[in-house]
Amino acid sequence: MSDSTLLIERFGFTVHVTLNRPESRNAMSLFMLTELDALFDSLQDDRSVRAVVIRGCNGHFCAGGDIKDMANARAKAMAATTDATSSFYELNRAFGRVMLRANELPQVLITVLEGAVLGGGFGLACVSDVGIAAHNAQFGMPETSLGVIPAQIAPFVVQRIGLTQARRLALLGERFDGAEAVRLGIAHFLAQDAGDIEKLLNDVLNKVKRCAPEANRNTKALMHRVGKVEMEKLLDTAALEFAAAVQSAEGTEGTVAFVQKRPPSWAQ
Amino acid sequence: MSDSTLLIERFGFTVHVTLNRPESRNAMSLFMLTELDALFDSLQDDRSVRAVVIRGCNGHFCAGGDIKDMANARAKAMAATTDATSSFYELNRAFGRVMLRANELPQVLITVLEGAVLGGGFGLACVSDVGIAAHNAQFGMPETSLGVIPAQIAPFVVQRIGLTQARRLALLGERFDGAEAVRLGIAHFLAQDAGDIEKLLNDVLNKVKRCAPEANRNTKALMHRVGKVEMEKLLDTAALEFAAAVQSAEGTEGTVAFVQKRPPSWAQ
Amino acid sequence: MSDSTLLIERFGFTVHVTLNRPESRNAMSLFMLTELDALFDSLQDDRSVRAVVIRGCNGHFCAGGDIKDMANARAKAMAATTDATSSFYELNRAFGRVMLRANELPQVLITVLEGAVLGGGFGLACVSDVGIAAHNAQFGMPETSLGVIPAQIAPFVVQRIGLTQARRLALLGERFDGAEAVRLGIAHFLAQDAGDIEKLLNDVLNKVKRCAPEANRNTKALMHRVGKVEMEKLLDTAALEFAAAVQSAEGTEGTVAFVQKRPPSWAQ
Repeated sequence: MSDSTLLIERFGFTVHVTLNRPESRNAMSLFMLTELDALFDSLQDDRSVRAVVIRGCNGHFCAGGDIKDMANARAKAMAATTDATSSFYELNRAFGRVMLRANELPQVLITVLEGAVLGGGFGLACVSDVGIAAHNAQFGMPETSLGVIPAQIAPFVVQRIGLTQARRLALLGERFDGAEAVRLGIAHFLAQDAGDIEKLLNDVLNKVKRCAPEANRNTKALMHRVGKVEMEKLLDTAALEFAAAVQSAEGTEGTVAFVQKRPPSWAQ
Repeated sequence: MSDSTLLIERFGFTVHVTLNRPESRNAMSLFMLTELDALFDSLQDDRSVRAVVIRGCNGHFCAGGDIKDMANARAKAMAATTDATSSFYELNRAFGRVMLRANELPQVLITVLEGAVLGGGFGLACVSDVGIAAHNAQFGMPETSLGVIPAQIAPFVVQRIGLTQARRLALLGERFDGAEAVRLGIAHFLAQDAGDIEKLLNDVLNKVKRCAPEANRNTKALMHRVGKVEMEKLLDTAALEFAAAVQSAEGTEGTVAFVQKRPPSWAQ
Repeated sequence: MSDSTLLIERFGFTVHVTLNRPESRNAMSLFMLTELDALFDSLQDDRSVRAVVIRGCNGHFCAGGDIKDMANARAKAMAATTDATSSFYELNRAFGRVMLRANELPQVLITVLEGAVLGGGFGLACVSDVGIAAHNAQFGMPETSLGVIPAQIAPFVVQRIGLTQARRLALLGERFDGAEAVRLGIAHFLAQDAGDIEKLLNDVLNKVKRCAPEANRNTKALMHRVGKVEMEKLLDTAALEFAAAVQSAEGTEGTVAFVQKRPPSWAQ
């Protein structure tokens, strides 16, 4: 059908994913969305992977949706081979599906945000656990300036940084750099240059290493339930998870390592 | 009944509203609330208006509720012509009604925050899409220092900046300047002087101009639904709205203009 | 059973609580949690107390849970005198109970955050109305590095600063200082040294003094309802509370004092 749009490499407990469509600043084609979906499927129960790093090739993270997919959907609509509304609906909805899955990926999701971080790329940044932003990256939602809406992106921006800043960013079509992205809470760490990015990424992965894999997985899932479940019930369930964690292999190893003043197995 | 409390002017796609009660630093009287309500009614379906700017006359945004209305409600209560509780209830509730409507105004709502930004004025700042704050403006909720509660204001402050800072501001009766308002996310842009305010306002309106009017309207409404509707359902509806936007006059013009490398009609 | 783990002193309208387990950097034992619970019971309807300050002895706020309680729960489990899961569950759940109660304490809750502010101590910081952080304090959730989860803490961190930063802090096991705590919104004021802490605390208590006690109590409860109750209903109830406040002794005194240009009784 097509060459893969993703380069996937494994080092230790980390899967490194490179969005690889250099001809379009790694725009998210439908095929790329399908490949990301399949990747997330394969990672769902893979306990050997503790971190996933997503970045883009050639100095760009991702410039948004792919114009060719849009043109195809238009052409199909013109040729009346499909219902136009359903073509556009399906194309658009695929973005939100990937955002939701990325948001709740069991592993720690780290994005490296260089160059264009626009539209769908901006959305993906907004669902990562850790964002490392190059100071000269360009963030934004260009949709409204093109006459359409950031339908599958804006909701995750609101979740990320609150309505106050999200409404300003979307309604003014703001473009901004890495420093502003960190100030707003879209990204977490600011990199001054390429060397700085690798150093920060290395620091982040070392921190992930110190955290017990199952504990991290369960903590992430717990935090995603806040605001969706009534607080007393949330705490009840969480206390049961705590009791299970204490009695698990990880909890035992953590306690023994602490007493023996050595790093636990997962941090070695 | 009374002269209007609002000066309303139209330039291009923007309605400029000036709160005009200089004798009381533009305190929000019941009559002003009624006039704002009527203005919002008239704007609801007016597609020719894309931005609404609210500011105050004589160097103040708005000093809060009007003491005379309060005195009147007290006098009526004393005279037993009305039930006291219902007088105070109606007076207070009118503020929340205007805040809610301002919050969801279809146009981009911009507030220019100078001088006193207190009580109801503070609430109005908290529901604008874009706030431009003078560095020497004075923000705060003085209610608890007067023995009453910021009943129709505090909820919007919590929505604006989160419980963490809102609880501190309200329970300490904090007063703070424009720089702190921007740091907290109550306002977005900081102006050093009067010239700076006009420059920032002009920049903001130019940015609004680049965004398609219907797209902006629908994006704003979409963002307001986040947290109220379950995420999967929200994304389903949003994808349908995207499909409609693509096929609309705006979506077509946006695509054609992009291909022809010219600004779309709404940005000219 | 044991000496008290809390030093409790009363000055004017303020109750000063010192966590007093110097041998363990004021780690929260089950007994300390029980004592905090009893303290909160006694404060619930005490209108003479308007502020509660919690700090730790010997330069530390609180280093988290108590390892001895954990060891006891393990020992009981080994000896099969109790069901292991229920022992760990009860131990853990007790933290969340205290966090919830501290969060909604009717008085203004102020935490002084020095030295270790870890685990349960970090959670307590996250439910205070005002946090004063020493620049060299050490904040963090060490749980995942020990193979367990911050089950009763992480949910309050998400409520405090949003998911974006909470997920980074928890999943990387971040440790950070007072300046970062203030930047993230975990604490509100940054102290450079011990003298600075006392000065800031004094300022905060003077601000509490200016706010009417019942008005503050009702405002705090109102803000806690935001997001739990539909906004229109919330504003309806709040307007009724406003009407009651205006007609109360406090509301009357506030108005009279304002007209007479003197401080109201509660501020004298």
